Amino acid sequence: MSPEPGVPEGLDVAGLQRRLADFAAARNWQPYHTPKNLAAALSVEASELVEIFQWLTPEESARVMDDPATAHRVRDEVADVLAYLLQLCGVLGIDALAVLDAKIDRNEERFPAPGTD
Amino acid sequence: MSPEPGVPEGLDVAGLQRRLADFAAARNWQPYHTPKNLAAALSVEASELVEIFQWLTPEESARVMDDPATAHRVRDEVADVLAYLLQLCGVLGIDALAVLDAKIDRNEERFPAPGTD
Amino acid sequence: MSPEPGVPEGLDVAGLQRRLADFAAARNWQPYHTPKNLAAALSVEASELVEIFQWLTPEESARVMDDPATAHRVRDEVADVLAYLLQLCGVLGIDALAVLDAKIDRNEERFPAPGTD
Amino acid sequence: MSPEPGVPEGLDVAGLQRRLADFAAARNWQPYHTPKNLAAALSVEASELVEIFQWLTPEESARVMDDPATAHRVRDEVADVLAYLLQLCGVLGIDALAVLDAKIDRNEERFPAPGTD
Repeated sequence: MSPEPGVPEGLDVAGLQRRLADFAAARNWQPYHTPKNLAAALSVEASELVEIFQWLTPEESARVMDDPATAHRVRDEVADVLAYLLQLCGVLGIDALAVLDAKIDRNEERFPAPGTD
Repeated sequence: MSPEPGVPEGLDVAGLQRRLADFAAARNWQPYHTPKNLAAALSVEASELVEIFQWLTPEESARVMDDPATAHRVRDEVADVLAYLLQLCGVLGIDALAVLDAKIDRNEERFPAPGTD
Repeated sequence: MSPEPGVPEGLDVAGLQRRLADFAAARNWQPYHTPKNLAAALSVEASELVEIFQWLTPEESARVMDDPATAHRVRDEVADVLAYLLQLCGVLGIDALAVLDAKIDRNEERFPAPGTD
Repeated sequence: MSPEPGVPEGLDVAGLQRRLADFAAARNWQPYHTPKNLAAALSVEASELVEIFQWLTPEESARVMDDPATAHRVRDEVADVLAYLLQLCGVLGIDALAVLDAKIDRNEERFPAPGTD
């Protein structure tokens, strides 16, 4: 409850997840937030991110943050994707960081790095 | 460098992002990881999440974690979405938690909760 | 070159595909129309269709054409999806109707209808 | 009812749409085929198409039909996208070719070709 000085409150995954849940609850949006709908919304936001890049060459896509307006748009869509991902994890009781950690462990076994035997 | 006892090393966003970057670098995958390609991969993984839910009723979608095999699949796809999102943020220099925090601030202005004035 | 009387010119798949190709050529858009970019654009348009339905109940989704403004939006997104699909088929030399016909044949083998043996 | 000699029966959009509707009806799949679910399924198939291209360079993506196995996969996903698009149009009463024709008309006004005035 008393965050470290200098660290903005809520800037960890659990804190943001709580803010998102409170936000939805205050607007009575929970009936809409079925896992099915949240997964669809997540994929829609991911596509809005793709849209920014769809006609760019690989090289242009690497410089996308050089233009302030495009950079703002990218950040905005990243925020939307993460928001729906954390809300989906919230309603399903999934610890997003733990499942990613476990997945990287599995991938290290599936795809051994060259020169590691 | 010395994590708190009992807390698995790397279980914060920055730590996972570092693991993902090391993983890609050890396999020489960076040339493939343009922002454009990572955004596409993110949207593909988000769709694999949608696929799990696509024929379910809203009620069935709410019980999706009751079946262990489906629950595993959901966790796996959540991990994949988060992995590509953090890799995209890594190559673009975006702080995912900060942009989400700022977005929630903006949404609180855009969509005032009923009874808050 | 002389269409049947009463049939609008171009209202078959080949005719529309030709119009789309001419449209892109007249604007020098072909360099952007790589198969990779067209597939991405197709998926973005498909997501814009999903967006219309994302918070609707199954029942509400069945009545989506009752509202003229929403019906217009649905038709517009259907057109965009078909446009990119036909352009993708154009650059790849795929006959969209033939591949669907072949796929239905395969599906009839894969999923025998009940009572057909 | 008597197709032209040499033209496979059903190889127009209306005929394929009828085959798809009969296929779904014979398997009692109509309850699953809400517009919302069909739109989601369409976007999932579009993403499976994106997946084929996601790590390719623009140049590699242009040669994707050179490899028979990849060409088969592309044709298969194109068929799936078109199948769900036509089923969606079927349940919503949309004439896919007519809406595309109208959309090209609108786009010709919105994006005048250089040198046409």
